[in-house]
Parts: sequence; structure tokens; C-alpha cells
Amino acid sequence: LPHEERVLHCTTAAEVADAIRRLAVRGAPLLGIAGGYGLALAAYAASGEPDQDDQLRSAATMLADARPTAVNLPAAVGRVQAAAVNAADPYPAALAAARAIEREDAAASAAIARHGLPLVPAGARVLTHCNTGRLVSGGEGTAFAIVLAAHRAGRLAHLWVDETRPLLQGARLTAYEAAAAGIPHSVLTDAAAGSLLASGQVDLVLVGADRIAADGSVANKVGTYPLAVLAARHGVPFLVAAPLSTVDLDTPSGSAIPVEQRSAAEVLTVAGRPIAPTGSAAYNPAFDVTPPDLLTALVTERGVLQPVDAQGLAAHCRMEPISVSP
Amino acid sequence: LPHEERVLHCTTAAEVADAIRRLAVRGAPLLGIAGGYGLALAAYAASGEPDQDDQLRSAATMLADARPTAVNLPAAVGRVQAAAVNAADPYPAALAAARAIEREDAAASAAIARHGLPLVPAGARVLTHCNTGRLVSGGEGTAFAIVLAAHRAGRLAHLWVDETRPLLQGARLTAYEAAAAGIPHSVLTDAAAGSLLASGQVDLVLVGADRIAADGSVANKVGTYPLAVLAARHGVPFLVAAPLSTVDLDTPSGSAIPVEQRSAAEVLTVAGRPIAPTGSAAYNPAFDVTPPDLLTALVTERGVLQPVDAQGLAAHCRMEPISVSP
Repeated sequence: LPHEERVLHCTTAAEVADAIRRLAVRGAPLLGIAGGYGLALAAYAASGEPDQDDQLRSAATMLADARPTAVNLPAAVGRVQAAAVNAADPYPAALAAARAIEREDAAASAAIARHGLPLVPAGARVLTHCNTGRLVSGGEGTAFAIVLAAHRAGRLAHLWVDETRPLLQGARLTAYEAAAAGIPHSVLTDAAAGSLLASGQVDLVLVGADRIAADGSVANKVGTYPLAVLAARHGVPFLVAAPLSTVDLDTPSGSAIPVEQRSAAEVLTVAGRPIAPTGSAAYNPAFDVTPPDLLTALVTERGVLQPVDAQGLAAHCRMEPISVSP
Repeated sequence: LPHEERVLHCTTAAEVADAIRRLAVRGAPLLGIAGGYGLALAAYAASGEPDQDDQLRSAATMLADARPTAVNLPAAVGRVQAAAVNAADPYPAALAAARAIEREDAAASAAIARHGLPLVPAGARVLTHCNTGRLVSGGEGTAFAIVLAAHRAGRLAHLWVDETRPLLQGARLTAYEAAAAGIPHSVLTDAAAGSLLASGQVDLVLVGADRIAADGSVANKVGTYPLAVLAARHGVPFLVAAPLSTVDLDTPSGSAIPVEQRSAAEVLTVAGRPIAPTGSAAYNPAFDVTPPDLLTALVTERGVLQPVDAQGLAAHCRMEPISVSP
């Protein structure tokens, strides 16, 4: 993408894990869904084998460890594993659990859009980072689902899309989803967001999340934290939209979130072409962490949490879950 | 660059203006030098023609207008023009003025390095943005001249190089200059600077400038302002290094600095390859403006100004100039 839409068929858990590692599948909610279906594939392959449960456990470890930051991945894999291990017939049990994860994420996406829409002012110019639409979701996404809802409600004036180096998920994927939806949008380099915010051309910053710690700290695509700092400086609301599957109350604080360091090649080459001298090193964290005091609000499928802090987040997570029709 | 070092020979003022427009020559100090020599080429061509002064004036306008933000360009062109217009023999007069501009810039670069060095702590890990070395200077540059001096003095532990999208002057040029000087360095995406500063791995941010207004506001490569905001948040000193030729007391404040908007193609393509869908628009300011309260200090050839404000800057500009041997 954005030049060609190609569907990748994975027929084994190992192929799914590989697709996750090389980011053919990415985005916290979709990582959970893909991990769940990956383990269902493992259950299919192991079905009836004498070491069936060992195979499942080993596939679950492989899938859960494919990337470290999004908590959706190990959580979903663990849930499918729990359904399949010790089941008389593990494959249907695993598949049902994976399907439930996808269905719940689609419902969460719709609820996030519903709860988030009132936070978008009429005529809003929204700045977003990375990619948070249907390419990462069982539904229409997280932050992008709110953008879409605002567009449909006629209250989105413009979408500013950070290109999101190094892998350009903004330019490649979000601009593609915006174009497909007929949303007026412009791509900017990540470094230009400061000048854009300073010039008063942004009414709302809206991003997703890869893991939210118990204190409300948000790990998201690298470059999110500078946006939050700049938004605070310019008095622009900074909203995070994520399903509760992204909240990890077992991670106490932002500093406890494992941040994936990815290969130098992602920075030192663009489209396969080297952009720096041979021998230059690179610093390439995939995510950064935004402290909760920089968040205006958190939008989940349960509603809007504002302000975001440890106590509020714990209470928010204890609220009645939305019901999902099977 | 960084793959091939190729020397561009310009034999007319029009060729120089074209090289400036397409950034074959860039960086505030070098824009002044190139503009000066460009007008000397025009003086050579016009020499003895009946409309000699008209030709000179028209070439001066073309060169001065080739790019809008760096004040060095119109200032240097104006100085060479003043030397050549009405001269009995305009070419030697213009060439002498252009050579003086280059010589003064080399001297300013050396003085900036001398004044800036004491501001670099031992074992410093320095973050820089864009390119400020010999590729933009009659000498060793502005910010990069201080980096080089610190490296030679054995007090530079590491240089962090922002890649500087869209044109990647950091990855292509600064990493190249760092590698050539044997400086240990890493390239990072501009968006990763927030996580780097938050992790405590930066002791000093050091950048150049394209125009400094009378109130001390600094226009520099887009992405500088976010760095300044983040440095302030993390208590990391933020230094701007620039020759006085970059200070424009006739521009009262940051908002009065003309910021060049460049083509969408620079954002929407990398190395000639499209990275966004056909039809996506782009926001592409070449520069942003950092207010003076975010500057820890300004280093010029006259010394160190700290804090940076309108009164201090005016006094700093009135100080005795350094003498330049011919």
C-alpha cells in the first residue's frame, strides 16, 4: 500500500507470526485478532496429535512473542489458548474464541466512534499519527473510526496526516484510507506538526494506542509523545482512542512498558534505497510513551475517561462491558 | 550525497539561482556566499555592456528572490551589488566583495566554534537537526563547527542526527560529515527525538538558523521548534549557532519571517518513489519558528548571548566585529 492492495493468506501459525514480525499485520487491535486466528490455525494442525497441547503452547509462545509492545497480542493468544487447551476438540474451540475477539473488536470500534464523535467540534481540523483504521481493526478502527464518524456527520473540515516515519504508515495507509473515504486530507512530515500546531490550523489531535499502562501512560507509534507535548503547549485537545483490550492494568506505569527497538535498516533506507552513509548507526524505537497528564481524554468502547489517571482508568475498566451479539 | 560527492560548476548567475532554488546549494551562510559569487558572475557577463548596471540589478533581484527565508541571501547579494554598481570595472569589485563574504563567513565559523566549545559538557551526547557543517559554510559551519570542536577536544561522546525529512539533510549530509570526521553518530527519525530526550540520552541540542528576527525568534529547518519545546520540557539546553549575517534586525518578530512553502512532491515522494496515494495533498513548510524563550543561548562570532531577547540581541549586534585579515 498505497499502490496495490494485496491479500496475504497465512495457513500456519508460523506464517502468521512471521507476518506480525515483518509488520504485514500491525496495529494493536489487529495484532490481537491475527494472533487469535494464528493460534486457531495451530489448533487445526495439532488436532488429534498426541502432543496436541504442547504444540498449542509452543505456538502460543511464538505468536505472543512476535512483537513486544501491544498487549492485545499476548492477551488474545492467551485467551484462545485457554479455550483450546484441554478441549476435546481444540480447533472449533480456538476458532470460536478467535472469532469472538474479532467480533468484540468490531463492536468496540463502533462504540469508540459513537463515544468519540461528540468530542469533535464542527468544522474540525484533526491531526492524526500512524494508522488506526480498518487496516488495524475488526471494524473501522480506533482514532480513525472517530474521524470517519465525524466525516459522515459533516463536521470534519480537514484531516492532517503525519507521514509517520520510518515505515510511513500515515502516508501509505492513513492517506489511503482517507482517500478511499473521500476525506479531504494532507500529508505532512512528522517534524512539520509543530509548525502546523503553532499556526493554529489544528483543532484536535486524535491517535490510537499500542498499550495503556495502569497509570494511564500511553505507548503508541513513535512521534506520538512530541505531538502530545506540542498539543498541550498550544491548548489543542489530545485524544487517545483505544479498545479496553489495549489497556494493561498489570503494567503499572509508562516506564514498565516494553518498547520494541526495531532494525536500523528501517531508518537508514527508504523504499529499499540507502539514505545515509554506509556505517552510520540508527536509533529506532517503534513506540514512545505519553504520560497521562498530557492526555485530554481517553475514548474506549465504554465511554470517555477525562481526566486520565490511575484511579479513573481502573474504575473505567470495571464498568459494565457492552454486550456483543454473537 | 551521501553516495557520491559531485561538484557543480555554475558559470552564470541564472545557473546559480537555479542551483539555489532546487537546493543544490543550501544552508543560510552558503546561500549568502553563493548569491555573492552568483552576482560576481553577472558582473563578469555584464562588464562593458551599455546596460551593465541594469543587468546587475536584474541578476541581483533574481538571486535574492531565489529563496525567501535565509536573510543571508538578499544581504550578500545586496552587498555585492553595492560594490559593483557604478564601479568603473564592476567584475573585480563584485568578486572582491563576494570573496570578502566567504572569508568573513569562514572566520565567523571558526569564532562560533571557539565560543561554543565551552558550552559543550565533557562526554556530551549532542542532538542536531538538518545540516550545518562545511556544506553550508565558508568554513566548518555553524552548529556542526561546535560539534567538530567538541569532538577534537575529546568531549563529544555521541552525535544524534535527526534525519530531517523531507529532504533528509541530516541522514544524507550531516551523517556524511560526521562519518568523514570520525564522529560516533546515530541517525534517528525526527519523530524519535521525543523518546530520545525523554530517555535522558541527550545532554545538548545544537542547531543552526536560517533567519533570526530582532526579538530573537529563530527560523530554522522545519522540526527545530518541536525539538526546542521537547528540550525545554526535559531541561536539556537548546543552543542556536549562527553568524550575525543570519540576524535580521529589520524583521521585528518571528511571525514576520517569511517561511517558504515548498512543493508537495518533496513530502509525497522519497527518492523519486511515491509514498502516498495519488491525489493526496501535502503541507510542506521548509522552516518553522522557535520563540526566543525556548533558546538557552545563541552563539555567534561575537560570543554567547544568554538569555536571548530583543534588547540583548541588539546589543550583541552592536559589539565590535572580529577583525578579518584579508
